[in-house]
Amino acid sequence: MTQLQGIAASSGIAIAKAYRLEAPDLSYDKTTVNEPAEEIKRLHDALEISKSELEKIKEHTKKSLGDEHAEIFSAHLLVLSDPEMIQPMENKIKTDSVNAEAALDETANMFIDMFKNMDNEYMKERAADIHDVTKRVLAHLLDAEFPDPALIDEQVVIVAEDLTPSDTAQLNKEFVQGFTTDIGGRTSHSAIMARSLEIPAVVGTKEITKQAEKGVTVIVDGLSGDVIVDPTDEQIESYKQKRSEFEEKKQEWAKLKDETTVSSDNEHVELAANIGTPDDVSGVLENGGEGIGLYRTEFLYMGKNQLPTEDEQFDAYSSVLKQMEDKPVVVRTLDIGGDKELDYLDLPDEMNPFLGFRAIRLCLERDDIFRTQLRALLRASVHGNLKIMFPMIATLDEFREAKAILTEEKENLTREGKEVADDIEVGIMVEIPATAVMAKQFAKEVDFFSIGTNDLIQYTMAADRMNERVSYLYQPYNPAILNLVNNVIEAAHTEGKWAGMCGEMAGDEIAIPILLGLGLDEFSMSSSSILPARTQILGLSKSEMSSFKDELLSMNTSEDVVAFVKEKAGLE
Amino acid sequence: MTQLQGIAASSGIAIAKAYRLEAPDLSYDKTTVNEPAEEIKRLHDALEISKSELEKIKEHTKKSLGDEHAEIFSAHLLVLSDPEMIQPMENKIKTDSVNAEAALDETANMFIDMFKNMDNEYMKERAADIHDVTKRVLAHLLDAEFPDPALIDEQVVIVAEDLTPSDTAQLNKEFVQGFTTDIGGRTSHSAIMARSLEIPAVVGTKEITKQAEKGVTVIVDGLSGDVIVDPTDEQIESYKQKRSEFEEKKQEWAKLKDETTVSSDNEHVELAANIGTPDDVSGVLENGGEGIGLYRTEFLYMGKNQLPTEDEQFDAYSSVLKQMEDKPVVVRTLDIGGDKELDYLDLPDEMNPFLGFRAIRLCLERDDIFRTQLRALLRASVHGNLKIMFPMIATLDEFREAKAILTEEKENLTREGKEVADDIEVGIMVEIPATAVMAKQFAKEVDFFSIGTNDLIQYTMAADRMNERVSYLYQPYNPAILNLVNNVIEAAHTEGKWAGMCGEMAGDEIAIPILLGLGLDEFSMSSSSILPARTQILGLSKSEMSSFKDELLSMNTSEDVVAFVKEKAGLE
Repeated sequence: MTQLQGIAASSGIAIAKAYRLEAPDLSYDKTTVNEPAEEIKRLHDALEISKSELEKIKEHTKKSLGDEHAEIFSAHLLVLSDPEMIQPMENKIKTDSVNAEAALDETANMFIDMFKNMDNEYMKERAADIHDVTKRVLAHLLDAEFPDPALIDEQVVIVAEDLTPSDTAQLNKEFVQGFTTDIGGRTSHSAIMARSLEIPAVVGTKEITKQAEKGVTVIVDGLSGDVIVDPTDEQIESYKQKRSEFEEKKQEWAKLKDETTVSSDNEHVELAANIGTPDDVSGVLENGGEGIGLYRTEFLYMGKNQLPTEDEQFDAYSSVLKQMEDKPVVVRTLDIGGDKELDYLDLPDEMNPFLGFRAIRLCLERDDIFRTQLRALLRASVHGNLKIMFPMIATLDEFREAKAILTEEKENLTREGKEVADDIEVGIMVEIPATAVMAKQFAKEVDFFSIGTNDLIQYTMAADRMNERVSYLYQPYNPAILNLVNNVIEAAHTEGKWAGMCGEMAGDEIAIPILLGLGLDEFSMSSSSILPARTQILGLSKSEMSSFKDELLSMNTSEDVVAFVKEKAGLE
Repeated sequence: MTQLQGIAASSGIAIAKAYRLEAPDLSYDKTTVNEPAEEIKRLHDALEISKSELEKIKEHTKKSLGDEHAEIFSAHLLVLSDPEMIQPMENKIKTDSVNAEAALDETANMFIDMFKNMDNEYMKERAADIHDVTKRVLAHLLDAEFPDPALIDEQVVIVAEDLTPSDTAQLNKEFVQGFTTDIGGRTSHSAIMARSLEIPAVVGTKEITKQAEKGVTVIVDGLSGDVIVDPTDEQIESYKQKRSEFEEKKQEWAKLKDETTVSSDNEHVELAANIGTPDDVSGVLENGGEGIGLYRTEFLYMGKNQLPTEDEQFDAYSSVLKQMEDKPVVVRTLDIGGDKELDYLDLPDEMNPFLGFRAIRLCLERDDIFRTQLRALLRASVHGNLKIMFPMIATLDEFREAKAILTEEKENLTREGKEVADDIEVGIMVEIPATAVMAKQFAKEVDFFSIGTNDLIQYTMAADRMNERVSYLYQPYNPAILNLVNNVIEAAHTEGKWAGMCGEMAGDEIAIPILLGLGLDEFSMSSSSILPARTQILGLSKSEMSSFKDELLSMNTSEDVVAFVKEKAGLE
């Protein structure tokens, strides 16, 4: 038995055997072979098994993410059936008497180099396809395990150094009971995805990949952050008990599903959800979300080889709006760049991507991409209660420019005879310190604010939230953050606008009493946090929390704030 | 004739021929040789000429930067004379019949790999020495130009993609008339160094290395940001004229050298200088600096293979304090990390170094390094008017921890019978948004603030100041920055403390009227900016500038601020 402490990233308890998600070792020796026919057979066997795997993944992806995302696997399958690709491999085995590994790898690399250097986007994509597919075939030749999260068909706990967004997108909730990683924090993408999928998760254990062999039983306690490898029978029993207690609690919470969220002194606030895809909406509704406070549109752009079309986007946005009926849906325009890359956009490497060319900065330069998204949004607006939000706004000029483009596209659509709602609110993410400081000026021009605390905290503290060496500075309760949040809320209310929050902080039990007291209007969080938050707010008096405001804002340290709030809000 | 527009980084005009500072192409073919004796002679010739160059550089460095910095070249010279290194190269030529290039490179790489993998700091440093020296010898074998800024002995304008701090440290003002680069901005290190050395410079021309061949005449106009390659005779004449006018202006300014700095309504402010080494003090005094507002101590740690000792640091700090007599000297403790690396500290690579493990964050963890510096500072304190400043403070906890270490070392020194001044002010850089927001709380505990605008702006706007794609967001006059600066100054004054500024903004003619109006007490800038700033302040009324404060702080954009200030302060 080994016990590790990580960061509780998604609540719930998972008990299952470990499935290691890791890149296989694909190094091989180039050897001389005497029986080329045998090598050619080995090559074809590896190609065939790769094809059948890809077929399965394609089917799975089609079901979970839609046709569009499955297309990339069709491209991969084409590569594996292309005689212009396979023939040279066979020839190489025959004429050079080399093993299948070398023939495959060298031939593939030749094509990759050739395609990559062509000045043609389509051919560059093919180079990427060949690269991906070759790794899979090579793994089969080497009998190395090539992990495919999409193909998991038994109950497991995923163990990995980290999970990429595309790994998490492939996870099948039916079989994946939970996951645990070496690195990451509460705001890393894998953690956010885990909450969105409602899979228990503990991240940042530092060494789970060292401790958990394939197949060993692992307990992931997403409530406390504990991970137990190879637990004793008593531990398994005790965690099963804890799991049922948590399930019971969830059932208690579920009773509040159709209630509105009011404090003990009868003040209403809105509890909304953060989502990534139209499929997430069912979770929002099941958890009693009063709206969607953040629809991250990046997933439409990820895991594929080209930009999504206007119609594809229209379908996604309409689907979310229709499912939510009249409830508000805040859609954030594309926030790509920084740590979120799109291979096909070929963005330059940056020294400090978090301080770089991303989100609205990129959209204002690549306004072709931006306009397509805005048109899709505007067209979808007739299907529900749409609000549009621009990310990473740092100056009023940027907001004015983005809004002008939106207005232009609205006029274009009207001219084309397309219907557009005319009451769409247009707001901004407040995630850059300058914007929080300038909230008074912004409040005169925007319709709403949504405070993005994940980024706001890292910029305000000048500490990369993904960097473990400075993670002690990721302080949501630092009085500096509270002062900026207060400034934003006050500015909004002065101008009769609303202020929400869509960072992780909005669903945090220590932050909730503070934010309620500061007058936050909308709290947007992972769906799974909504009912616990509603339960908490029912027991809090907004006016009492407000009375602590001045004292909180003039405190010295994060620790002072936490101690104070725990006492006043009755948290142990 | 080609004219380029860059960023005016250091004032003045330079006219001289281009000296290209660039890494030579050191690729070579490995060939079989028939006359090994000849190859061995080629090898020895290259070794000898490299040795004589290194001797010269060593002498030059000793003169300009001191014995300590010259030591690295002694280590390089040892490598070139080491028979255990040279013998295997000769053997390789003889037994393998390879050319000198291959024998040198392969032998060197073998040693480098061997030493690098040893768990011994000393041997790792030797690996670095061998690496550096091999490049020089290889360049001579290949007849490639290996540029040595230290060896320049005629009037030139340096043309480079960028200059590293160690390149700039080697520049000899006697011969280097100016420099111009492809990349960089007003706050890049090369620009700061140019102002400190008072060498005219234009950075960020994007393509000067493409345009200026070696030896062509180049005009660098550090006043306007223009660079002219291969100018006409008329242009040379006209720029010579402009140069003499600038010299005359400088003489006008020089008359104010011994004056104090007072506004037209007789309010005094302190104009201080930013320096990097004890050698810079003479420039401060010549330019009438009333103090040193920022002594960057990083140079003591750079360009060598190990940490500076307590005594070496004591000598440097004492030298500055003595030269400045009773004038205030603010010494910033080590700000390493981020874009400033020290090879021998072996810091981990970071995804976002500007948001990473640097400055006080590193010093609090590596308190051995920090304590040595503090002891040296405390011992030097008896030689002048020392103030100690901690960089990158984000929380009160960090300040308290740093100050506690300082107090401990003071007690230790007293116990050891060493004398320490007991009126040393201890303050912080305000360069992180959280700290600017929390200025009221900090002001109760620190003795002074110095606002570091270069970093404060990049964090507040969430835009890497070195990244050209987001350089439009580096906005010193953004009202968000002005509000934070105002908050810091007000907080200081409420507690009876003083507030200075040591970022580039402090010497800027548009910022000066604003900062005077906000009540800034100390302006610290490049020495060469002091007299122009004094001239400007003599003509400004502080009370008039103060009367614009509320209007400025509630403006919408940077452009609004600039237009307003230009009008009110009489700038065209």
